[in-house]
Amino acid sequence: MTLIAEAKKMHFSEPLPLQSGLVLGAYDLAYETYGQLNADKSNAILICHALNASHHVAGVYDNELNNVGWWDNMIGPGKPIDTNRFFVIGVNNLGSCFGSTGPKDINPQTHQAYGADFPVVTVEDWVDSQERLVSALGIDCLLAVMGGSLGGMQVLSWSIRFPSRLQHAVVIASAPNLTAENIAFNEVARRAIVTDPQFHEGHFYRHGVVPHRGLRIARMIGHITYLSDDVMNTRFGRGLQRAKMALQAGEGNGSELDFLYTTQDVEFQIESYLRHQGDKFADYFDANTYLLITRALDYFDPARMHGGQLSQALKDTKAKFLVISFTTDWRFSPARSQEIVKALLDNRCAVTYANINAPHGHDAFLLEDARYMTVVKNYFEQL
Amino acid sequence: MTLIAEAKKMHFSEPLPLQSGLVLGAYDLAYETYGQLNADKSNAILICHALNASHHVAGVYDNELNNVGWWDNMIGPGKPIDTNRFFVIGVNNLGSCFGSTGPKDINPQTHQAYGADFPVVTVEDWVDSQERLVSALGIDCLLAVMGGSLGGMQVLSWSIRFPSRLQHAVVIASAPNLTAENIAFNEVARRAIVTDPQFHEGHFYRHGVVPHRGLRIARMIGHITYLSDDVMNTRFGRGLQRAKMALQAGEGNGSELDFLYTTQDVEFQIESYLRHQGDKFADYFDANTYLLITRALDYFDPARMHGGQLSQALKDTKAKFLVISFTTDWRFSPARSQEIVKALLDNRCAVTYANINAPHGHDAFLLEDARYMTVVKNYFEQL
Repeated sequence: MTLIAEAKKMHFSEPLPLQSGLVLGAYDLAYETYGQLNADKSNAILICHALNASHHVAGVYDNELNNVGWWDNMIGPGKPIDTNRFFVIGVNNLGSCFGSTGPKDINPQTHQAYGADFPVVTVEDWVDSQERLVSALGIDCLLAVMGGSLGGMQVLSWSIRFPSRLQHAVVIASAPNLTAENIAFNEVARRAIVTDPQFHEGHFYRHGVVPHRGLRIARMIGHITYLSDDVMNTRFGRGLQRAKMALQAGEGNGSELDFLYTTQDVEFQIESYLRHQGDKFADYFDANTYLLITRALDYFDPARMHGGQLSQALKDTKAKFLVISFTTDWRFSPARSQEIVKALLDNRCAVTYANINAPHGHDAFLLEDARYMTVVKNYFEQL
Repeated sequence: MTLIAEAKKMHFSEPLPLQSGLVLGAYDLAYETYGQLNADKSNAILICHALNASHHVAGVYDNELNNVGWWDNMIGPGKPIDTNRFFVIGVNNLGSCFGSTGPKDINPQTHQAYGADFPVVTVEDWVDSQERLVSALGIDCLLAVMGGSLGGMQVLSWSIRFPSRLQHAVVIASAPNLTAENIAFNEVARRAIVTDPQFHEGHFYRHGVVPHRGLRIARMIGHITYLSDDVMNTRFGRGLQRAKMALQAGEGNGSELDFLYTTQDVEFQIESYLRHQGDKFADYFDANTYLLITRALDYFDPARMHGGQLSQALKDTKAKFLVISFTTDWRFSPARSQEIVKALLDNRCAVTYANINAPHGHDAFLLEDARYMTVVKNYFEQL
């Protein structure tokens, strides 16, 4: 049975105080829901999204049957998060470019698009805004909050900021903060965007242009870090792009091909893949959103206000946790998930932890993997 | 005793056939020598450089006492490569921007700078040109050829192309070819340069500009891959740049500082470090050279013409090998060095292999490390 999704929007007129000290006036949140909220409103699961995703978590739109939600393998009728049992909420984060208020929207103070003037939002700000949506939907206590990567950080933050509002916290392929190397990759991506002459200090909308060059570079860097070295070698290796094309055309395997000896044209398959990913991304993603979301990643560090003690940051947490990592994830390595597990155990919290042996690197949290899906399915079946 | 270096240049009028099928007409090689060639010319060691280095390997210039050679900790009087015993040759590779013929030089066919028309050069082409220099210096057989990273690839190539012209091959922090991930990082760096509007399809010299933006991004990406995650966390961690400045000014350790909440200004120390490295590099390095040298890295793959069998590629090698890797080098991991060692052992070659436990990542091959230096020193003392 195909799940038909419907994008909704909710307006909030009460200003939102941000971690930065600034205040966001009225704003909208785009969201979707799947399944039915039960009578005592005890079966709601909130899904938090990562870098470039949105509130469109599962299903398709009836007028866009190819537009499949980003976690459709995880959520739906009969799936690990079974929408026959659970009421699932997908929400788009503030600052995004997919429906919730963000840099492309009109700044009421200037009557022009916010652009780079959109306030810096943090994981905590997102969680605060999500809490208002959940309240507006009439839900006092979520059965679970769940997310991968940056989404997992939001789950952690939920358990800290609203310990009584969730029963279960599902943190996948995440970390309690970014390492210097993580920040470094984000910074290079941001510099590529900001130094693109078409960025126009973040007000490129007024100029009718898009900093495509910078967005492409940012996305290419991102993709390298989402994949494991192993899966890159398996999928692309040192294969020549022309060899792949020869194979597809039934003209041999290209093993005898000489190099093109070029510095600018595509030679290796991995180059073609990265360029394609960069081009696609630059066509749909907003540059200011990219800056905001990578910065939210950089800033997240709940232990910071507790002298670096994550267990202190989590001391009031009441939720039961499911923490999942993937062996080949070098962006958010299993060791980072294990820091979370340790801090929870220090607080005698209930934790289920699985380190899934998967070849796909950080991307694994989005992919079909029988062991991974089974862990999630079993966890939710017992609830 | 300070070693005083003197940059020299040698002209070659015999055209050099390149792997691409093109031919480079007359060309110059910049080089330096340290120590004295002995009477039977049996004490010469050739040093091959990596990505952004040059022929200035050791010592200082008498009019530039701060301009220290890039491997000065390794080479000099009483050092692991002792110039009191050995005659050491540093050579700048073709296509570089430090003295040997490259993209900034005049193309005799157009009477303008080569720019992007400089032919693609490979590791094999460099080795062929180096062999001519060695011959011109009157040396039949080198005591050793030595290099790190891309320099190590040149050493491997020497042992394959001119097996009778070297007695020892010293391959440090290198690999028999690049992985897909290595190529991916190079490709992103190249795209950043090529898509910089000031690149002007490689003919920016004519426009009196430099693609600084692209060069900066390229260098920032490079620096991330030169360092280990561990050393980044130790040196920078999540430290704020303002905290560092407060500490330097004796104004506390900045632990109470709030974030700036900025997407474009420097917040973390790692950002300041990367921006500084990018700026420095963009001021002195040539964009076309960067494309050429990263492409030479991508193309190097001596096993390719032997069905992927490295041991076949090395079957005529006669040199004795010293192979060194570093435990935290994730750019050219120890496993890649071990592939070389295995292929040599398959051919019953003499190999000494050391995997140095060092925290510094790929950069370790350039750094002072007692165990590393001792391994090299002991190897050369017994010769």
